[in-house]
Amino acid sequence: MTPAPEPPYYAVIFISRRTARENGYGAAADRMVRLAAEMPGFLGIESVRDEGGVGITVSYWQDEAAIAAWKAHAEHTAVREQGRANWYEEFEVRVAKVERAYGWRK
Amino acid sequence: MTPAPEPPYYAVIFISRRTARENGYGAAADRMVRLAAEMPGFLGIESVRDEGGVGITVSYWQDEAAIAAWKAHAEHTAVREQGRANWYEEFEVRVAKVERAYGWRK
Repeated sequence: MTPAPEPPYYAVIFISRRTARENGYGAAADRMVRLAAEMPGFLGIESVRDEGGVGITVSYWQDEAAIAAWKAHAEHTAVREQGRANWYEEFEVRVAKVERAYGWRK
Repeated sequence: MTPAPEPPYYAVIFISRRTARENGYGAAADRMVRLAAEMPGFLGIESVRDEGGVGITVSYWQDEAAIAAWKAHAEHTAVREQGRANWYEEFEVRVAKVERAYGWRK
């Protein structure tokens, strides 16, 4: 699970339903994770997709400015266009301020 | 995707890695969703688990008081004990205030 500093920090919750088209999706998704990880203020990312094509990706950021800079990244912007054209049936984005966090492990 | 009112509202992001044991997990998880949906201030829930056993569940709540009431629910508390004993290798909980949200669909 993504290590993270003490709250507060930000979470971007991205929930999506994929089309059946692959069309370069996997490579583009991997590339976006690598690019995001190079951005200032990036704290981590967790992503799960089930067999039905529904996925939840949560990325963590230091502040709103870091989120805005990633959204404005030219390659990310271009890939979002492809996402709407080819890869997603629908998605929902929620930007949230993490106020507290705790974990547990065996 | 879960319908939701205009922000602000709260999200509880629960990320977990399951053990290989079924042991009543599916029925208990379904029951918890039904019980949560009866709680005042419940707004919705989205849940995805991949084949590797990693899952992300995001539940939405009107305010912190609604989250606290659900956490204190007796049956939910008992099931969390079972979760640590049987069903989870590890989990992470993050409570976050959703500040903005937008969606898109074809």
